[in-house]
Amino acid sequence: MKIGFVQLNVSFGNPGENLKKIISLTADKEADLLVLPELANSGYLFSDKNELTELSENIETGKFCNALKKISTEKNCCIVSGICEKSEDKFYNSSVLFCPDGKYFVYRKIHLFDKEKKWFSPGDKEPEVHEISGESFSKVKIGMMICFDWIFPETARTLALKGAQIICHPSNLVMQYCQRAMFTRALENHVFTITANRIGNDIKPDGEISFTGESVILNPLGDYLMRASQDKEECLIVEIDPSAALNKNISDNNHLFNDRRNKFYKI
Amino acid sequence: MKIGFVQLNVSFGNPGENLKKIISLTADKEADLLVLPELANSGYLFSDKNELTELSENIETGKFCNALKKISTEKNCCIVSGICEKSEDKFYNSSVLFCPDGKYFVYRKIHLFDKEKKWFSPGDKEPEVHEISGESFSKVKIGMMICFDWIFPETARTLALKGAQIICHPSNLVMQYCQRAMFTRALENHVFTITANRIGNDIKPDGEISFTGESVILNPLGDYLMRASQDKEECLIVEIDPSAALNKNISDNNHLFNDRRNKFYKI
Repeated sequence: MKIGFVQLNVSFGNPGENLKKIISLTADKEADLLVLPELANSGYLFSDKNELTELSENIETGKFCNALKKISTEKNCCIVSGICEKSEDKFYNSSVLFCPDGKYFVYRKIHLFDKEKKWFSPGDKEPEVHEISGESFSKVKIGMMICFDWIFPETARTLALKGAQIICHPSNLVMQYCQRAMFTRALENHVFTITANRIGNDIKPDGEISFTGESVILNPLGDYLMRASQDKEECLIVEIDPSAALNKNISDNNHLFNDRRNKFYKI
Repeated sequence: MKIGFVQLNVSFGNPGENLKKIISLTADKEADLLVLPELANSGYLFSDKNELTELSENIETGKFCNALKKISTEKNCCIVSGICEKSEDKFYNSSVLFCPDGKYFVYRKIHLFDKEKKWFSPGDKEPEVHEISGESFSKVKIGMMICFDWIFPETARTLALKGAQIICHPSNLVMQYCQRAMFTRALENHVFTITANRIGNDIKPDGEISFTGESVILNPLGDYLMRASQDKEECLIVEIDPSAALNKNISDNNHLFNDRRNKFYKI
């Protein structure tokens, strides 16, 4: 199974331009699962509610989402993308898994970072896993989390305990802590992780924010299979055996999940 | 407040020798809290139950424990040590916090690693925190976990949620994963951590095992304040402000604990 990410300099307020870049960066690539950054349609640094209203979209009907659905079908590749979502009168920082057969699944970020709390409603459902199949793989379980969700060990843990073999992680990281910590997230849960970060800046009259790149893919042993640059747009892909994430043994006598002592844990 | 560790080449089956080394390595050191490796009285690689019976001790009456109590009082320093514990007819891989006033607190490892399951009963109580005070610090909350406990994020999380400011972590690490992952444990909980590892080998007729040293102390931002060598006995000490671990804010609008979405977490 081929998995990868598209590391992108998301252009604020320009979903058409972002779409063009995604198409261009993936044009000559073959993959079964590709992950794009957080808020890949809109950009990150909102100045007012009008921008948010204008740049968010309904996942069923939105132009950016429908274009990703089309790419997914044409390339026969599952695509996970961060989406600035509008649903009824609410806005969510969401991640959508688009499947080649037209089905899609939505996760809404449950841990909003800093000023995101001003713009978005927090996710209203628990993280779930979704089964995908393709020509070279079948019934692989996918979980999604978004950027800052990483710092709460409970997010990846919840996904892994629900069976996620690959955690897709659209991000707009402003520090480099996460890229280091994904070692722990992958290893403690014995899962593959794909952190798709963005590069560049959002520069607005009222502020500026920079993103750190270094998108990473890890295997269940915590090995970095891929690490992107800090400042280039890239689509990197690696072949994996997703069944490696089904093995939760960490010694002859230890199982990462069965050895948990739930009754002693505080939540 | 001065905190540190004693990185030791624990001599298997020779608690008197281990004690001598501890006394010698700490003789000219001043500290408020010192952490020793896992199973610092006995060594790690047991061959049979007779050895275990012989090398384990009752914490109230054992020679090694009483010597550590004495050192704690004499040096006016809290000491956390891994202890091969015998209690009634059971054996535990334990960590004991000895306080200068003679009080002590016991934690029994809840996640036993590999063949430890053959020798020890798993810890029968949830991890707790204990308040210590000294001349230069007051009411600092201490948690204990032992070696392999680290890989379960729930262990450090439970201690941190119970208020631990410093997690003392006696270890006998055979890999170097933990030393890297403590970055995540410290950062995700905003706590200080002291991982006291051992060096050298236990060589027995039926097997051999090597330990990786590199004992580490981290602050709540995940910075490595101290890192020992891979192969030398050392007592390293650093001055910290334990109140730094009380601040769980990670941005102007984010609090590591209050932002948790418990109802969405699977345990």
